[in-house]
Amino acid sequence: MFVYTVSFKNVATFILILYNFQMRRLTSNANRILLLLNVIWTLCLFFSWILFPYTETNYRSNRHNKFKNGKDTSLATVRRLLRQKYPNDQGLFSTYFDSELPVIYGVTPTYTRWTQKADLTRLCQTFLHVPNFFWIIIEDAENKTTLVANLLKNCGLPYAHLNAKTDQRVKLRDSDPNWAKPRGVSQRNEGLKWLRKNADSKEPSVLYFIDDDNTYSLKLFEEMRFTSTVKVWPVGIVGGLKFEGPVCKNGRVVSWYTAWKPDRPFPIDMAAFAVNMKLFLSKSDAMFSNDVPRGYQESHFLTKLVTKDEVEAGANDCSEILVWHTRTEKPNTKQEDKLIKAGKSSNPDMEV
Amino acid sequence: MFVYTVSFKNVATFILILYNFQMRRLTSNANRILLLLNVIWTLCLFFSWILFPYTETNYRSNRHNKFKNGKDTSLATVRRLLRQKYPNDQGLFSTYFDSELPVIYGVTPTYTRWTQKADLTRLCQTFLHVPNFFWIIIEDAENKTTLVANLLKNCGLPYAHLNAKTDQRVKLRDSDPNWAKPRGVSQRNEGLKWLRKNADSKEPSVLYFIDDDNTYSLKLFEEMRFTSTVKVWPVGIVGGLKFEGPVCKNGRVVSWYTAWKPDRPFPIDMAAFAVNMKLFLSKSDAMFSNDVPRGYQESHFLTKLVTKDEVEAGANDCSEILVWHTRTEKPNTKQEDKLIKAGKSSNPDMEV
Repeated sequence: MFVYTVSFKNVATFILILYNFQMRRLTSNANRILLLLNVIWTLCLFFSWILFPYTETNYRSNRHNKFKNGKDTSLATVRRLLRQKYPNDQGLFSTYFDSELPVIYGVTPTYTRWTQKADLTRLCQTFLHVPNFFWIIIEDAENKTTLVANLLKNCGLPYAHLNAKTDQRVKLRDSDPNWAKPRGVSQRNEGLKWLRKNADSKEPSVLYFIDDDNTYSLKLFEEMRFTSTVKVWPVGIVGGLKFEGPVCKNGRVVSWYTAWKPDRPFPIDMAAFAVNMKLFLSKSDAMFSNDVPRGYQESHFLTKLVTKDEVEAGANDCSEILVWHTRTEKPNTKQEDKLIKAGKSSNPDMEV
Repeated sequence: MFVYTVSFKNVATFILILYNFQMRRLTSNANRILLLLNVIWTLCLFFSWILFPYTETNYRSNRHNKFKNGKDTSLATVRRLLRQKYPNDQGLFSTYFDSELPVIYGVTPTYTRWTQKADLTRLCQTFLHVPNFFWIIIEDAENKTTLVANLLKNCGLPYAHLNAKTDQRVKLRDSDPNWAKPRGVSQRNEGLKWLRKNADSKEPSVLYFIDDDNTYSLKLFEEMRFTSTVKVWPVGIVGGLKFEGPVCKNGRVVSWYTAWKPDRPFPIDMAAFAVNMKLFLSKSDAMFSNDVPRGYQESHFLTKLVTKDEVEAGANDCSEILVWHTRTEKPNTKQEDKLIKAGKSSNPDMEV
């Protein structure tokens, strides 16, 4: 590989010396003109090189700038060329490389189950399309599992892998309906603790709670990326309704559309809002709690941050569904249970 | 924009003429060496230019070659640079641009339901990571729906949008368990009909049946891309087991691991195999049928194409789970049903 190690100044000086040397030696004007042309030509080539300074060293040193704010002209060039080449892939290429966009921190509580790897695999594939996305994943477990650790390592996103065991006092039993106890409280709080310690309040970024069983349209992330306070939008298939969420007009929330406990201060789903990071970091008591009534987690968190009037409307004045509740069906385990009883379960070396 | 319109030969000749002219005029060896260095320098710059021939014209003419077989050197360069820049994104960049890879035709039957848009949205996001992927989607409906048409239009993949209504004689009722009747038969056959008409038997490609409720790892597609006959692999969370599928050794199938009807010729799931397109096109009777016993669709189709001994082993000798059954839970519609009864359902203009 051809490595570019000479600075512009050195090269210019070198060319000027050569130019003076030869100009003095040459006798006829014709030759002087030829030399001048040669130098101009060299400069043209040189500037074409400046325009495309792709070399290994260059790349090595730039690699860590992906999430920094510095202007990265080589990337801008690649982006422009890709835009020309793939007019249909604007979304993917125009944003994937953009190092100047605010970072989106996704906070995802998760727990061990048959469908966990599949569900997290799908999420990873979604987030790989989202530029400047940072994934904070918190396992409900005493120790981090190898399955999640490997999945995150192979996913290709920047991430933080945490764990926080749910207090047994509030832990759901298998026989409980899934709404009987608050879920994900300890895990989300662990994620928030990590953010208070690691997020840079000077760099623009956004906080979003991402459950591992929802579906997220790519457009949603661009809706939330520029959020000044708290931005809200409707969520599909939730609370027994086709959708639920804010009713908006001219960028502000007018009312809430919900069939259940409409008197809550913020009667919306965990997937229905994103928070400006600076705002979140400035309110040290914004947390979740095991001691609030059912359905009040979102309200408990949001009332620490904003009033209804300060909330911004996302998703085209709350007129589009860009996120859906899509819990994966609990699998039938009949045959496996039989095998386990007979002492010969499916090969445990096979990670599913 | 700086446009490169001079050929290599012209430039080389020009430099040689200049070189000879000046070499003859110069008197001291020191000056000759300086000139020689100058020329070498010019050549270095020139070659660096050759290495990065990115110009608008270049890109305009290449744009339409994405799915052609011609060698695309400018793309190869972009790919190489991206690989250096994003070592963690090998999967995405190393394959996304490769125009010489066989096409994967994914055949997906689908039907209208609350979670349809969410499920198809996730699939689209998965396939966007797969290079040279062509999506054939067949609705179980009298007419194509606007929802699916818009989703495909906005997804960004090349696709065919078809429809085929399931014969009422074999149609599942809401009260039936989902395995009671063969599902997707008419739709898959419609997809196969389209392929027989449109697929080019000279271009290498692969056929894969993709249900709209499974989860697919990106690695799976690279496993199936080069398939000479039929390639198989295990599927996660199916038939009451943690996984089910072939047991393989040295690239061949030794036996089948399944708890249900193990005597079927191919006791595997629809997601467990891919077929070489040339082989499929050469067997005009390879189709699905409403008249085979439950669980025999795959066997019925595959026995027309191969014997067990001809089947290839995928997923690292069938030792990895790269696809999972993950049907989305049937949503609770209680509140919506109430609203409908009261004559005021959720805003029907909101596409969910």
